[in-house]
Amino acid sequence: MQKVVAFGGGRGLSASLRALAKLDVDLTAVVTVADDGGSSGDIRATRPVLPPGDLRKALVATADPSRAEAAELFSHRFGGDDFLAGHPVGNIVLLSLLERHANPVEAVAAAGRMVGTRARVLPMSCTPLVIEADLAEGSGTRTITGQHDVAVADGQVEDVRLLPADAPACPETLAAVAEADWLVFGPGSWYTSVIPHLLLPSLREGIAASTARKAVVLNLSEEKETDGLTLAGHVDTLRRYAEGVRFHYVVSGDARTLADPRSLNSAAQSLEARLVAADLAADGVTHDVASLAAVLGKLLVEDGG
Amino acid sequence: MQKVVAFGGGRGLSASLRALAKLDVDLTAVVTVADDGGSSGDIRATRPVLPPGDLRKALVATADPSRAEAAELFSHRFGGDDFLAGHPVGNIVLLSLLERHANPVEAVAAAGRMVGTRARVLPMSCTPLVIEADLAEGSGTRTITGQHDVAVADGQVEDVRLLPADAPACPETLAAVAEADWLVFGPGSWYTSVIPHLLLPSLREGIAASTARKAVVLNLSEEKETDGLTLAGHVDTLRRYAEGVRFHYVVSGDARTLADPRSLNSAAQSLEARLVAADLAADGVTHDVASLAAVLGKLLVEDGG
Repeated sequence: MQKVVAFGGGRGLSASLRALAKLDVDLTAVVTVADDGGSSGDIRATRPVLPPGDLRKALVATADPSRAEAAELFSHRFGGDDFLAGHPVGNIVLLSLLERHANPVEAVAAAGRMVGTRARVLPMSCTPLVIEADLAEGSGTRTITGQHDVAVADGQVEDVRLLPADAPACPETLAAVAEADWLVFGPGSWYTSVIPHLLLPSLREGIAASTARKAVVLNLSEEKETDGLTLAGHVDTLRRYAEGVRFHYVVSGDARTLADPRSLNSAAQSLEARLVAADLAADGVTHDVASLAAVLGKLLVEDGG
Repeated sequence: MQKVVAFGGGRGLSASLRALAKLDVDLTAVVTVADDGGSSGDIRATRPVLPPGDLRKALVATADPSRAEAAELFSHRFGGDDFLAGHPVGNIVLLSLLERHANPVEAVAAAGRMVGTRARVLPMSCTPLVIEADLAEGSGTRTITGQHDVAVADGQVEDVRLLPADAPACPETLAAVAEADWLVFGPGSWYTSVIPHLLLPSLREGIAASTARKAVVLNLSEEKETDGLTLAGHVDTLRRYAEGVRFHYVVSGDARTLADPRSLNSAAQSLEARLVAADLAADGVTHDVASLAAVLGKLLVEDGG
């Protein structure tokens, strides 16, 4: 059985995980730990733990369908306007496990047992991280700190980095990368969910050293943080942070690529990667899980690694 | 297998449940739903749900020991001083289930599956209730509303009641009482955890109509709300609210009863019940689970119902 590691953050990673979980693969999710918005941000404001939100989403995306009750409970977001309003139950359960286990990997594994996850869900680092970005402003730049603020700020991102810059990756994450047959990056918020995996020095080195086939799945919808960035621009940006990393496939699922693949084709070629274009849009915005599973499944069969 | 229903609230009910769970019986816990202190009180202040705390304690007390991780998670109480401080995880999980299920009995059953409860845990009423008490003050009385305030108020309780006075018992609870071979009351906070079961009209009628053997387990330690009330006084007070109910056994486990059982003996006789005196104190304050199990187990064998 091929070992596949999928990298990402929240919603985008959920899409690749739901697709990959349909295939007969040994699946690992590696999740960014720099989120500071919403429920995770509220929790991080007072507690020195990994942000639980994206970990929860990865667990729910890979939960055993026969245990839907547990996954739905994890996703249950409190309404109202009291102290619990806006918090998903799974974030609070994960928080308690993160407080109970010295190793966050064990905490997430315990949460995984509760929902019967069919993947191994790993944080990219066992240290809570902060994203910082330089954004173009007039003829200069301004620095924005925090994933949420970066994601919603006006202006084009010129550079993105993690604080602390030398945080270690989780050993379990590095081991999963070293053993993988496939590494899948994206889809997801490019600067705040996909590229951060390449900003962690030991993780980027592990990815560069890996002999796994590497695929990049591009986004279908535009986001504030990549406003004005073409799909070819997404590829170019990724390459900038992926020093020493050889990518093999760039998967694009939107109608524009299908209509005119030329610019994206040349961007893929600059990575020495092959462009795989297919109609993957469920609704023009999100990936159709079955279609993405079909495309990734075909690659895994054709290119056994 | 004999069907045993145990009535109570928080810590005291946990003791009887832990003891009864050691016996080969079909066990049901019926839990008061008037708590308004601590985490449950904070939750009830903004959300119209049953107070989760005592339900959680009953679930943890009867959890499958092989699933200790889940029960420990339910009991994990957040430290710190932020919005989660002082709340046990299980209360928040129960809250979400109570919001997700129209029938609270199903919500508690779902939580029971998470911890692998070996008992059926039922709320006494599916309506959140409020305890109100009249306390002696000088030559008159003053009325205190709310379980927490009643439990800590100065002055002897003269009368206790539930608001609303005509709340229905859960149908599942009435059915469990009707089918029971044994009903066990206490130990626990007398006015706020034990007697409330007799204050719900339909539940008292169901208990009175039941042909089950009925045992009362008295407390080992004194509490503020029963300050100055002797053990015989506890029995007399219970009788006052138990119109039409025939009790068969009064179980007392403290050293004073063993030394001089006379006054308690006559109180038990006033109920037409037999006094069972044994050393049940683990530390002078709480019931030793194994000793209580031995005494109750002996009754169940000797008096098959």
